[in-house]
Amino acid sequence: MFSDRIKRTQAEMKARGLAQLMVTDPDSIFYYTGIYNHPFERFWGLLIREDGKHVLFANKLFRLAPVDFKTVVFDDVDPLTEVVCPCLEPGLFGADAAMAARFLIPFMDAVPGLRPVLAQDCVSSVRARKDEEEKANMRIASRINDETMEKVRDFIHEGVTELEVGEFIKKCFSAAGAGGESFMPIVCFGANASDPHHHPTDTVLREGDCILIDMGCKWNGYCSDMTRTFYWKKVSEEDRKIYGITLRANLLGEEAAKAGRMFKEVDLAARDHIASFGYGPNFTHRLGHGIGLADHEGDDVSMVNEHVIQKDMCFSIEPGIYLPGRTGVRIEDLVIATEDGCELLNHFSKELTVLGI
Amino acid sequence: MFSDRIKRTQAEMKARGLAQLMVTDPDSIFYYTGIYNHPFERFWGLLIREDGKHVLFANKLFRLAPVDFKTVVFDDVDPLTEVVCPCLEPGLFGADAAMAARFLIPFMDAVPGLRPVLAQDCVSSVRARKDEEEKANMRIASRINDETMEKVRDFIHEGVTELEVGEFIKKCFSAAGAGGESFMPIVCFGANASDPHHHPTDTVLREGDCILIDMGCKWNGYCSDMTRTFYWKKVSEEDRKIYGITLRANLLGEEAAKAGRMFKEVDLAARDHIASFGYGPNFTHRLGHGIGLADHEGDDVSMVNEHVIQKDMCFSIEPGIYLPGRTGVRIEDLVIATEDGCELLNHFSKELTVLGI
Repeated sequence: MFSDRIKRTQAEMKARGLAQLMVTDPDSIFYYTGIYNHPFERFWGLLIREDGKHVLFANKLFRLAPVDFKTVVFDDVDPLTEVVCPCLEPGLFGADAAMAARFLIPFMDAVPGLRPVLAQDCVSSVRARKDEEEKANMRIASRINDETMEKVRDFIHEGVTELEVGEFIKKCFSAAGAGGESFMPIVCFGANASDPHHHPTDTVLREGDCILIDMGCKWNGYCSDMTRTFYWKKVSEEDRKIYGITLRANLLGEEAAKAGRMFKEVDLAARDHIASFGYGPNFTHRLGHGIGLADHEGDDVSMVNEHVIQKDMCFSIEPGIYLPGRTGVRIEDLVIATEDGCELLNHFSKELTVLGI
Repeated sequence: MFSDRIKRTQAEMKARGLAQLMVTDPDSIFYYTGIYNHPFERFWGLLIREDGKHVLFANKLFRLAPVDFKTVVFDDVDPLTEVVCPCLEPGLFGADAAMAARFLIPFMDAVPGLRPVLAQDCVSSVRARKDEEEKANMRIASRINDETMEKVRDFIHEGVTELEVGEFIKKCFSAAGAGGESFMPIVCFGANASDPHHHPTDTVLREGDCILIDMGCKWNGYCSDMTRTFYWKKVSEEDRKIYGITLRANLLGEEAAKAGRMFKEVDLAARDHIASFGYGPNFTHRLGHGIGLADHEGDDVSMVNEHVIQKDMCFSIEPGIYLPGRTGVRIEDLVIATEDGCELLNHFSKELTVLGI
């Protein structure tokens, strides 16, 4: 499995005339080796070479399982350029998106003629297409997310705060055996929902509030990510209206998601619907994002992305309408593209639901 | 406060002949502006210019409070180089340590003559010296850590697993009102303690195990970080011996920590003691690290760091001895350097403690 992933990456490198590519994103190194380390500020890199002479660089503090290729182990006091640069060659040097300046710039200084190019595509294009095992993990992570949303819906009660709901979500994930959250849960009551990235506060739930919950957990390293919006005790006409528009946009996006289409077609299927009701300026973000080992990875589902969706790519569909200072709504599912449509990973109801009545 | 921090950074830039410095570490941007965003893969940058014409770059999804300088807001579909590069000038371009290749390389491609230099020192040297408000926050974060260690000591019981202790730690931090953990708690029983970065598993506590706990929380963004090692029901002669050596190394390090000394003198004060008993190869990491808004920031306390400690720098002193497959011990405190020594931030007992008897 790992050698196949590396071979596919080498093919991408070859197509770009790239002999060397340094991968530093811990998720990507896990993808290629099965070894996960969170290196903090230390260097943790996998040099993939088109000629097959790959090198894994690891601080001696890291956990290392046996790997098929050369491993260079160093410690905290070894000068990093002396460890890494003997393995680099002048000419094009592929760097992944995550590679930090604290590594890249010293490598450039130490290797005359090193010409860095951003080569994340060589990694992303391979990671984007999930194999059967990865899809199984994505389905389980989303099933736990669905089940947790049911528990959260039943937990919401008079006087509850956003923070309490956030803590409850974490407990549910933990009880389900998930490997933590894939991101800090977003819980918004009422006007707080007009900030798409609001984090839980001690805001208390009040009658008429929307309740926007965007959450995800991990299963074997793979992420889920879903948003639902409920209402407490009653729902205003305005909320009902934007909910209906957003739900339809979500369904239109999911109908458009299919191998062979461009990502922008999916975004626009949802966006045009929202815009047709005059809420275009209130849908302030892309429709979605690739997802897998990272909560956000690979292609954006945005109106400017002309990349073509391929079978087994997994991404989110998450239209929203945000009315500053008043309310907000977002409805999000994950999908995996198939040849004639997409597999929906979330099955929690999207019907407008008023709680507490 | 913010303008003073920026002025001190400009002075560092001037000393290095640097007209422009892009700061992308969210902690550093918080330090200079009071605004914290976790940008995920999006760009979030503060361009500090020696001439004072600073620019803050923010995706429209980010929370933005009013700031004193020019702000450029962009959205998900704006090409980033068109947003940022008009504000850059050919010549030396300071990048902070965290700046990702996905930003740096496109900037280099878009601005002919841009010559990147790693300029983290201009930021780190300013962040390293804590002001009164920062010191107050560091003290509170460490007080909560001390109090949590007491609760953890009392919580440890027959049949408990590492994971349960890890969950208990998170609950204590949450109940104390801390802003989360400063890093995932390290909880190791017995042989697991021989891995300095072990993460909690379902390992069950057994008689004779050491119990190594390394944890920290945040208060107003500032981190604590402390390690203690206990024993369950009994302690072997070997454990007792390495505990005593490590404790003495910890005290020697703290005695050596003082403004005017080099960091390496502090490391060596502890390291030489451990080595004198033949355990040098079993102390596999630096003695400590700078700490503040980030759990690891600024200077290493390592045997090769010849930087001079300055008053108000905060760092850890954490000697350890690791016996692979058998046991381990680490004893860690935070200190703030003063002119004639250091202020100790942790007050939880370091006496050898056998629990469960």
